[in-house]
Amino acid sequence: MSLTLTTVGLDADDTLWHNERFFALTQDHFADLLRDHTDKDHLMDRLLAAERRNLAHYGYGIKGFTLSMIETAIEVTEGKVPAEVISQILDAGRDMLSHPVEVLPQVEQTLKRLRPQFKLILITKGDLLDQERKLAQSGLRDHFDAIEIVSEKTAAIYDAIFARHGTGADQGLMAGNSLASDVIPMIAAGGWAVHLPHDLTWALEHAQAPLSAPRFAALRTIGALPNHISRLLAD
Amino acid sequence: MSLTLTTVGLDADDTLWHNERFFALTQDHFADLLRDHTDKDHLMDRLLAAERRNLAHYGYGIKGFTLSMIETAIEVTEGKVPAEVISQILDAGRDMLSHPVEVLPQVEQTLKRLRPQFKLILITKGDLLDQERKLAQSGLRDHFDAIEIVSEKTAAIYDAIFARHGTGADQGLMAGNSLASDVIPMIAAGGWAVHLPHDLTWALEHAQAPLSAPRFAALRTIGALPNHISRLLAD
Repeated sequence: MSLTLTTVGLDADDTLWHNERFFALTQDHFADLLRDHTDKDHLMDRLLAAERRNLAHYGYGIKGFTLSMIETAIEVTEGKVPAEVISQILDAGRDMLSHPVEVLPQVEQTLKRLRPQFKLILITKGDLLDQERKLAQSGLRDHFDAIEIVSEKTAAIYDAIFARHGTGADQGLMAGNSLASDVIPMIAAGGWAVHLPHDLTWALEHAQAPLSAPRFAALRTIGALPNHISRLLAD
Repeated sequence: MSLTLTTVGLDADDTLWHNERFFALTQDHFADLLRDHTDKDHLMDRLLAAERRNLAHYGYGIKGFTLSMIETAIEVTEGKVPAEVISQILDAGRDMLSHPVEVLPQVEQTLKRLRPQFKLILITKGDLLDQERKLAQSGLRDHFDAIEIVSEKTAAIYDAIFARHGTGADQGLMAGNSLASDVIPMIAAGGWAVHLPHDLTWALEHAQAPLSAPRFAALRTIGALPNHISRLLAD
């Protein structure tokens, strides 16, 4: 059987550039601000619970994360958190929204190798303005045929995006660091998916790898993606 | 000279459905929460200053508005705001993110009248997830050929959107309640623009009407849009 693959989608945060490390640094700072009230492990549990609870309201991104930190600070101190601490949480959130963008190794070469053969789409979720800022600062914009900033990554969303910019999800491949967002829904949409693990991944993005799915693979680095695709097409 | 108009863009908040009234209600509540510390006029001045200062970080939408309310509460109380008040501000923000969508009068009939003749694009800014929620709840999705949720409305953005979905901004018309966002940049992009004033409009959206621009008009209601367009094309 001859396979056709026309379109490659790539996640952005922790696939093309560092992201979670800025959340981790901010969480350290957050724990430090509240060290007189609670230990870090407990605080992180409560923060994650708040993020999960607020996801349907806030969606993904730094603004919702900041609001969840404030809520958690009030909760763990039983309303005794000083306004000065809230103020520092607001500062920390704003700092995240202007953190420098650090493109991950091998990203640019990989995009250049894939571009002549495939349509390339960046598919990311998070705050609209923040994702646009990071894309602009990354210098990677011109390597992509299309940019899609979405509120959620589902099979239906991948269906729509790969139909709009390519030739359907069944002739598309999605690569990224999140099993929950980049891999599992793309497999469900009938496409190929490549997991590119990152050493830091947000707990809400964890999921079981679909090891028995024939269109799934995990690669250690994004630099291995062009050869992986060549092998797929040679099969 | 025969004019060609192929594509009509419509703003969403306070053009298709109520929006600013929910901000106004929340501001009343916010003033009430802080009534022991400051009067409403002063508080609103400080809040607007915070929103303006934070716009480059937060962009548009309710999450940034909530963060700016918290910042302002700390500021006007000189750090003495109780955590309970911050908690109520968080609740107020979440309430806004689930407020019911009330479609404005004549909207649906107008979209139905325009649809056979023109491509219709909804063009809005704000939080991605929140705008998607409102569109879904409005029941208006199927009246549009395309939806564009953008981080800012500039001439370049209108250029790109009307090129992507239509035949260029010079054959497009944009209608909405904001002179700053819906009218002035569309005129700058070479298109037609129609101002549909709403009795409540956020101060940061105020601007001078471009009264001398031949492609500008103001209409009292969205229901007048189809006849206005017919007259333009008959000229």
